[in-house]
Amino acid sequence: MADKVADFPSGPLDIYRNKASFNWKDMLCFLDGEEIIAFKQHVFKALENDPLFARRPGEDVPLEKMRELTFFRLKQLFRYNFLTKEEVLANPWKGVILNSCLGMYDCALAAKYYLNKEIYGSTLANLGSRRHSNYVENSQDMTMFGCFGMTELSHGSNTRAMRTTATFDPSTQEFVINTPDFEAAKCWVGNMGKTATHAVVFAQLYTPDQVCHGLHAFIMALRDPKTLLALPGVVVGDMGLKLGQNGLDNGFALFHNVRIPRENLLNKTGDVSPDGRYVTLIKDPNKRLGESLGALSVGRVSITRMALVNLKLALTVAIRFSATRRQFGPKNTEEIPVLEYQLQQWRLIPYLAAAYALEHFSKSIFMNFVEFQIGQMMREKSDRQAEIGREIHAIACSSKPLGSWSAQRGIQECREACGGHGYLAMNRLGDLRNDNDPNCTYEGDNNVLLQQTSNYLLSWLHAKHRDGVRIESPLHTVDFLDDSHTILESRFTARTMEECMDSAVPLAAYKWLVCFLLEESQKKLRQEMASGKDEFEARNDSQVYYCRSLAIAYIEHYCLQRFHELTTDTDTPAAGLRPVLSKLCALYGLWSLSNHMATLYQGNYFSRREPTEFVQMAILTLCSQLKDDAVALVDVLAPTDFILNSPIGNADGQLYKNLWSTVMQGSQVLERPSWWKEFCSDKPVVGSLRPKL
Amino acid sequence: MADKVADFPSGPLDIYRNKASFNWKDMLCFLDGEEIIAFKQHVFKALENDPLFARRPGEDVPLEKMRELTFFRLKQLFRYNFLTKEEVLANPWKGVILNSCLGMYDCALAAKYYLNKEIYGSTLANLGSRRHSNYVENSQDMTMFGCFGMTELSHGSNTRAMRTTATFDPSTQEFVINTPDFEAAKCWVGNMGKTATHAVVFAQLYTPDQVCHGLHAFIMALRDPKTLLALPGVVVGDMGLKLGQNGLDNGFALFHNVRIPRENLLNKTGDVSPDGRYVTLIKDPNKRLGESLGALSVGRVSITRMALVNLKLALTVAIRFSATRRQFGPKNTEEIPVLEYQLQQWRLIPYLAAAYALEHFSKSIFMNFVEFQIGQMMREKSDRQAEIGREIHAIACSSKPLGSWSAQRGIQECREACGGHGYLAMNRLGDLRNDNDPNCTYEGDNNVLLQQTSNYLLSWLHAKHRDGVRIESPLHTVDFLDDSHTILESRFTARTMEECMDSAVPLAAYKWLVCFLLEESQKKLRQEMASGKDEFEARNDSQVYYCRSLAIAYIEHYCLQRFHELTTDTDTPAAGLRPVLSKLCALYGLWSLSNHMATLYQGNYFSRREPTEFVQMAILTLCSQLKDDAVALVDVLAPTDFILNSPIGNADGQLYKNLWSTVMQGSQVLERPSWWKEFCSDKPVVGSLRPKL
Repeated sequence: MADKVADFPSGPLDIYRNKASFNWKDMLCFLDGEEIIAFKQHVFKALENDPLFARRPGEDVPLEKMRELTFFRLKQLFRYNFLTKEEVLANPWKGVILNSCLGMYDCALAAKYYLNKEIYGSTLANLGSRRHSNYVENSQDMTMFGCFGMTELSHGSNTRAMRTTATFDPSTQEFVINTPDFEAAKCWVGNMGKTATHAVVFAQLYTPDQVCHGLHAFIMALRDPKTLLALPGVVVGDMGLKLGQNGLDNGFALFHNVRIPRENLLNKTGDVSPDGRYVTLIKDPNKRLGESLGALSVGRVSITRMALVNLKLALTVAIRFSATRRQFGPKNTEEIPVLEYQLQQWRLIPYLAAAYALEHFSKSIFMNFVEFQIGQMMREKSDRQAEIGREIHAIACSSKPLGSWSAQRGIQECREACGGHGYLAMNRLGDLRNDNDPNCTYEGDNNVLLQQTSNYLLSWLHAKHRDGVRIESPLHTVDFLDDSHTILESRFTARTMEECMDSAVPLAAYKWLVCFLLEESQKKLRQEMASGKDEFEARNDSQVYYCRSLAIAYIEHYCLQRFHELTTDTDTPAAGLRPVLSKLCALYGLWSLSNHMATLYQGNYFSRREPTEFVQMAILTLCSQLKDDAVALVDVLAPTDFILNSPIGNADGQLYKNLWSTVMQGSQVLERPSWWKEFCSDKPVVGSLRPKL
Repeated sequence: MADKVADFPSGPLDIYRNKASFNWKDMLCFLDGEEIIAFKQHVFKALENDPLFARRPGEDVPLEKMRELTFFRLKQLFRYNFLTKEEVLANPWKGVILNSCLGMYDCALAAKYYLNKEIYGSTLANLGSRRHSNYVENSQDMTMFGCFGMTELSHGSNTRAMRTTATFDPSTQEFVINTPDFEAAKCWVGNMGKTATHAVVFAQLYTPDQVCHGLHAFIMALRDPKTLLALPGVVVGDMGLKLGQNGLDNGFALFHNVRIPRENLLNKTGDVSPDGRYVTLIKDPNKRLGESLGALSVGRVSITRMALVNLKLALTVAIRFSATRRQFGPKNTEEIPVLEYQLQQWRLIPYLAAAYALEHFSKSIFMNFVEFQIGQMMREKSDRQAEIGREIHAIACSSKPLGSWSAQRGIQECREACGGHGYLAMNRLGDLRNDNDPNCTYEGDNNVLLQQTSNYLLSWLHAKHRDGVRIESPLHTVDFLDDSHTILESRFTARTMEECMDSAVPLAAYKWLVCFLLEESQKKLRQEMASGKDEFEARNDSQVYYCRSLAIAYIEHYCLQRFHELTTDTDTPAAGLRPVLSKLCALYGLWSLSNHMATLYQGNYFSRREPTEFVQMAILTLCSQLKDDAVALVDVLAPTDFILNSPIGNADGQLYKNLWSTVMQGSQVLERPSWWKEFCSDKPVVGSLRPKL
């Protein structure tokens, strides 16, 4: 296989490429496999060869033009149809890879495609029934174009408080959809701004007897597919410029008593009979809503991956830059690459380790999700299936924060590590930061989501204490908590820095940490309740330093655990790849752990000065050992230059040539400004507008 | 005075305003004083009433248009001439305030104005002599327009390695300025892209005997002031789109053997005689360069302040938003402002405390700088003057990192804390983040600059050990280090959380921390040297966890110290303001300190679990005590709504009304896209571009 992957052009990066401890093509084959490599190459090539996808680094595209271009490219994606439904079913991972490839080109385009095909399409399929299948089909060939409308202007996290209503009128067999006031306008809906003809709209369902049955999903037409004009009673429009992802048209909609057929209710969790009775198999309205929102888990798992895509691109740019940018040196005459500096290594290489950890992690949780999804499709009703659902929810609610924050911080560090050149739009670090940013917010604010994870963990402890059950979950993310008592007795035992350079050391520390924070969180909650607070208040007042830290430690532990397993797996090539993967894993573990050192001391897992010194020295030693591998490691993660679209990150390492020629290609670079006479012939009279005393 | 400040409109923010523990107008008067308040109001009003300064939140302005608009506004600033030279001399602080006011409107405009007037103008005045005074005058009325050209494409931090040359030709009494190749192009120069007619250019000075005398500054014409066309031999152009500050035209220039008169050398540190001999009073070329670059200190002090400006604006937006955005609540029916949540308080209020700390700090270091500057102008040659110079350099090199990183992280937190609405361009958090970002980079990368500070501190320790001198500096930032021995014996002694709520507690901890890190850094350096590394390598390998942490702790300590002094000063109104200022100070100290807790344990200043618990509980308690003051505290820092330009941050607190009406004012909000037929009548054939097998 490796022979099908092209070599990189020779150039200034050779110095590092020749020093790498492993063969980057072997690593690529190990991580991706033959089929995925070929598929990625195919997608990248198709976009590169298609003039519609041409772009220039750092060009200044007006909003309206950006929306137009993205729409044209989107249409072209339907023509390419890189993956058929059958191909995705045969290998669901390919769907994620396609989304990553498109995301590497432009997140907004990937989102636009994905929101119609997956989020809108899957919601119809999952929450609807046979009667909605024509809508699903129409979304696949752009006869219709869809979006997912949940958030309202004044409500995001608190979904239960949505105020759009759907009242059944038996006399016409219709639902009347109404927005009580502008604060209840559906908003932020991707694709709704300019393009969507249809939306899944969440609204409070009222039967004719004025009883509210909670939030339900309805399929609604917004615009006439023949004219793209808004339908009567629908006010639909564009939210305007965002910080990033401006190819995607986020929109809003208000409904003024819009009538839709009874059948437009997506009736999986509940239905209304022609005479206006509410019928459901799920009696508990909270469970009903849970079922409807369960679909969001896949979104969160995908976001973890999309954030990683942004981080990979930023690291490619920053590490290739650092390997070719020279500044200062031991002697006056000869300068060394900035990657040789301890500080630069410490700023970037831990994020590279994080990218490798997240690469494996995001893939493995996606596979868990697929297993769960298959169970759902088989209508599996076993306890195990329900438990997987709960566990995946807990993982997804913390993996999204882990992924999106790692990317946010990593991209910022990459931007700063590239200095001024990192601030030039053409080098793309700004776009990556801006495009990644909403990953922290949509499908749930990171801080709010983490509460779901800590609640899950606390519920296990509660069940153990109350019912004496063994803590054991289908994906085994919590199993070790059952030994909490023993684990909490353990202490940091490494006696040298060298001992710490094994990922087993941070892994053991993380197990202690999660157990400690779980116990402390539970204590804190009890204390707050004992002081007279109700549960709502007690929970809120136990988040900072307790439940929030718990959820973060849990997901970092799990991510590290999976990576540790990979590096110790017998299938991992022992000679070529295992050493570098083991270093990355140890570095990721120690570096993540170093954010929790105060807690380790607090709970007496660490004592005296040695643990900190060992951990810090091990981090720096690993960074320095990995610096000669860093370029080869990003070569594995990097897309083609066309896709990367960053002159200072090109694979040939010709930093200044690429940068300079891109600067000179800019529009009106050397031209005098159109308003030159305003400078030359109309000099301001200094102080002429100063108020006279 | 307070009666001249208008009240805020009544509205949803009243709830918090009425609960505030202090009178916000009293605080404003205390911090700013009558003259500054009136001056700010005057500037804000002038801009608001001038149609040239009109703008819409979140509008999408193309690059060329942005440059044009900013130029027009710049010209108008000359007409307003808000401050005459005499007024600035009488009250230099007003110059900073003007810059802050303009920066609150638009950083790029402020920079454009400041770069010509202050950086270019002052460099001419400081590095030149009487023969350059006509250039200074011409820069004040836009006859000429100037910029400061130091950075080259391949060199930023390493100024000594600049490669532009200035060779003296006695036959014509000219310097020949030459750019050896494009990698030595001057670049990133603000104002150079489109507008500057003249530049101060730094180049290696060669006498006819081929001897290089190091970097010197020259005044060069770039463009003909009558036509704005580039002069022969000068290739000057625009760097293109940046992540932010796009009103400012950063540019590049290449010189192809451009000849300039001998007198264009700014000859303060050295001159060339008509017969080509190099003449200087400063024999050491490093000292010569130091003198030339000394001017950058004022830049760094100013950047600390500009970063604070961005942080203040972001906090105003996020805190007013949090006080009016309601989500969830103890009962199903009634929702509470998100500011009521512990998590939201912990995310935002410590940054508010940081803003107050930095407000006082940036002012006080500016005043130190003014004292130094006066000494320079008096050509004071005392040891004390030289020592102030060294100390101010150490302060400026770490206050810029402190200010710019606090703002960077704070703005990001504000963005996330406002959820999706924070991601809408119209709410300005993106612009604030993007505009603040280069503060981390220009006038020296933060991480690189911190080395200057740690070097300064290490040199004191070295001097004490070697010569037995007492550690004592003119601004007293290092005096406590002389007691290092005693301080290192001290331990954390607070026995309750309540005791910790006094800023004296973190202040004492910081003194220990700086002493500890100084000693550890020195040990580390010695170790590295002992292991056979040369000084260059040894210093590089002592940065992470040692010298870098030392410099950060030093400046945080100093900032806290100054704030602590303010809160204990007898001039600070005891009844009305001291309680809230004391809380802010304690919170700032504890919260900053919480990043160093592992080190406190490592060095045994902390032991057992109580210290962490006390500090954390104190932080949360202070946040919760300050949440009712938070709105009033941002009212003090906030500019007018026109200047703030963020619908969700308006002073009336009508969050949704302001947001919604701004959305509806957007261009083509409800219009169908111009390319609608591309959707309606040209459907893609799914898979038509798929390769046939």
